[in-house]
Amino acid sequence: MRVSELSRSSGVPVATIKYYLREGLLHRGASTSPNQARYDESHLRRLRLIRALVEVGGLPIATVKDVLGAVDDPATGMHEVLGRTVYAITGTGGDEAGAFADAAEADVRVMTAHAGWHVSERAPALAGARSVLARLHELGQAPGDDTLRLWAEAADRAAEGDLRAIAHGDDREGAAETALIGTVLGDALLAALRRIAQESHSAARFRPECARADGETMDSSTIG
Amino acid sequence: MRVSELSRSSGVPVATIKYYLREGLLHRGASTSPNQARYDESHLRRLRLIRALVEVGGLPIATVKDVLGAVDDPATGMHEVLGRTVYAITGTGGDEAGAFADAAEADVRVMTAHAGWHVSERAPALAGARSVLARLHELGQAPGDDTLRLWAEAADRAAEGDLRAIAHGDDREGAAETALIGTVLGDALLAALRRIAQESHSAARFRPECARADGETMDSSTIG
Repeated sequence: MRVSELSRSSGVPVATIKYYLREGLLHRGASTSPNQARYDESHLRRLRLIRALVEVGGLPIATVKDVLGAVDDPATGMHEVLGRTVYAITGTGGDEAGAFADAAEADVRVMTAHAGWHVSERAPALAGARSVLARLHELGQAPGDDTLRLWAEAADRAAEGDLRAIAHGDDREGAAETALIGTVLGDALLAALRRIAQESHSAARFRPECARADGETMDSSTIG
Repeated sequence: MRVSELSRSSGVPVATIKYYLREGLLHRGASTSPNQARYDESHLRRLRLIRALVEVGGLPIATVKDVLGAVDDPATGMHEVLGRTVYAITGTGGDEAGAFADAAEADVRVMTAHAGWHVSERAPALAGARSVLARLHELGQAPGDDTLRLWAEAADRAAEGDLRAIAHGDDREGAAETALIGTVLGDALLAALRRIAQESHSAARFRPECARADGETMDSSTIG
């Protein structure tokens, strides 16, 4: 297809496609004349991934380039491709650990030991988790070990679902796209699901007479 | 204590305390003279909760007032107090369901049935979950039923941990504060933990030779 068709099919403006070509994010098409080239499915798929990285992940072009570099380098294994993608969209949450750094670190150890996680010490999410835990301690809301263990189990279950969603085989672009979109949108989804589950657990604990097993939902007039 | 001490102990400026008194968010102290009043622990605890609602929850004063109304009304049960608090900090994610509304609704049904959740149809998190799921469908990343079920289990486990963190007894202000802070900061924490768990699961799947059971972490030079 021509660049105009590629633009229509992908929803990416021609000027943006040309910018991606210049920056090396998108591979050149097969030249059909000095000023024309033909593009195929591989260009469409790459544009989909770039859009996900830019629009869903909110990544700057330099970081997009880095992730695509991992996708394109056959020496980089699938685990590294996924790691590079998820690291790129993960904040460390600032360096707020401060006075509660040790307590936060102890919490992280409780959780990683309970879940049996093996993870690089440089994972930005480790710093992110420590920073949130330190803030909980600072606010006088240090979670107990049973809560920490349940949260670790929750995250582990979620990640199992995430990995299940990544197609088998060696579609590196597709896997990176799924990991990126699933991780970013999945955060919002899990936050919503957690509130739904909280309401259900709260009813069971504080209004046991309303938590019936007959599939009836709670009376909507009682909340909110 | 005097208002100046209340300010020091709570970290809330005197002018802000006076504003909360005028707005009825904070109950008056015992008058000791026409221009002075004495404050006690109950004022400190209330200020803590207000700070959490405003600073951690990002709520406008009108919404803070509504949540505090539920806390203060003895006819409002604990389940409603927690519900009012969590509803106040929950966005519905816009009305993006559009063409994929039915698919998103079906996904939600798979998850609520699997987890056995009973929840009000008016829960804002239901709309939030539908909106994210519709966006996943739109992006061609519709999760399979096994992924949906694992995510539901994850949210359920997280909520169990959340409820565990809420003190027993009838400390309504403390419970609301824990629910608020735990829910808001917990979103960030679970997002971080999920990435840690993803890395561990990804290693087990794509680099099984590196997922050793001897407690050694992955070689940090291989990722990121």
